[in-house]
Amino acid sequence: MITSRENEKLKLIRKLGSARQREKLGLFVAEGEDLVEAARAEGVEPVELLSAGENVSAELLAEVSRLAHPPRVIAVFRRADLPQRRLPPVGLALWRVADPGNVGTLIRSADALGPAFVALSPGCADPTGPKAIRASMGALFRVVLIAFDDAPRPWIALVPRGGSPVGATAGATLVLGAERGGLPADVLSRCDGRATIPLAEGADSLNVATAGAIALYERSGRRATQIASSPPA
Amino acid sequence: MITSRENEKLKLIRKLGSARQREKLGLFVAEGEDLVEAARAEGVEPVELLSAGENVSAELLAEVSRLAHPPRVIAVFRRADLPQRRLPPVGLALWRVADPGNVGTLIRSADALGPAFVALSPGCADPTGPKAIRASMGALFRVVLIAFDDAPRPWIALVPRGGSPVGATAGATLVLGAERGGLPADVLSRCDGRATIPLAEGADSLNVATAGAIALYERSGRRATQIASSPPA
Repeated sequence: MITSRENEKLKLIRKLGSARQREKLGLFVAEGEDLVEAARAEGVEPVELLSAGENVSAELLAEVSRLAHPPRVIAVFRRADLPQRRLPPVGLALWRVADPGNVGTLIRSADALGPAFVALSPGCADPTGPKAIRASMGALFRVVLIAFDDAPRPWIALVPRGGSPVGATAGATLVLGAERGGLPADVLSRCDGRATIPLAEGADSLNVATAGAIALYERSGRRATQIASSPPA
Repeated sequence: MITSRENEKLKLIRKLGSARQREKLGLFVAEGEDLVEAARAEGVEPVELLSAGENVSAELLAEVSRLAHPPRVIAVFRRADLPQRRLPPVGLALWRVADPGNVGTLIRSADALGPAFVALSPGCADPTGPKAIRASMGALFRVVLIAFDDAPRPWIALVPRGGSPVGATAGATLVLGAERGGLPADVLSRCDGRATIPLAEGADSLNVATAGAIALYERSGRRATQIASSPPA
């Protein structure tokens, strides 16, 4: 039973609050039984598992937790242990999406509206950071993550206006820009086409996680299939 | 020029960080020129407007700001001044959606994928709170907000499974449940139908802001119209 806050495992968990340390050590922290179960369902075992009242005091576990309500368990996983699945035929490529909540929500949507891969550029929030993991709700352990440049062709840029309707375009990768700046000209010029989600007059734009989900919803084929095979309401 | 942190206007802005004070005073704070412009575009003038270097020192404005990068202006608005537009024929009713980012993002989607109204139950995050306003990106000044019980019939509950495909249902109001708990039985029993967004096998659920946006996208009619009238990509 760990009863000292100087314990090496607790120190490691605190250290992994830093994105740089996560990258350096190739490790990340997942809080809560739901996430640990989601990992195990994919055959991913934690390298450390702290359980309140079992191998660590509840007080010390609460101290290293980043949640408003401290969980019963906190686990450390190795990034290299994330499942290497086959690349799905459709996915999202995120260009400098810096908000960890948006990155995690997009990973959750890639799982629920997919399967779809998620490709991340430098400057994206770390998908294994605490806020992103929480927003992904365990989907981190199921979704294939790749580097931006490894996203398969053709690339379709999702742009606020002027593109073809997103449901009428084909292409393996939907490229989404940063929350504020959108896609810079040099990334746009590397894309093979442009798609747009039609918006109400006067409306500026959608949240990037919303836009990505709608694009996946259109592209996954799930929508049409389900409606065709279901009785009318 | 305000140079004291004891100034009444600065005190008011600090006080409006509390949801209870916002409710009591019927006022809320919007930070940044974008939001003030969005308000003015709808004919809504602030009751107080603090401008760095004009009527307040930049240091004091930064002190009361809740943004990582302090804005040039901070404005106080009266809640009763929010535009009373005609109720759109479609909208969302949120049951205890407590995360302010989700409430704000749904208001932004109701604007961009609408026009759609947003109905809020007790226990929802305050749409005029700092995080919700920021997530709404100015849509707060354009979207009709009503009480949950005032949402027009028929009500369609959005449920994780077992409902008709969301694109195949009719109904004025899409009822969305809380992030974790979903819709309780007593709210479900008040609904006139159930709709579901078809998800991948094994996937648990979508983020509530994602689910609401997809439902609006399907229901707004925008999708079909645009695709029918556009040339193929």
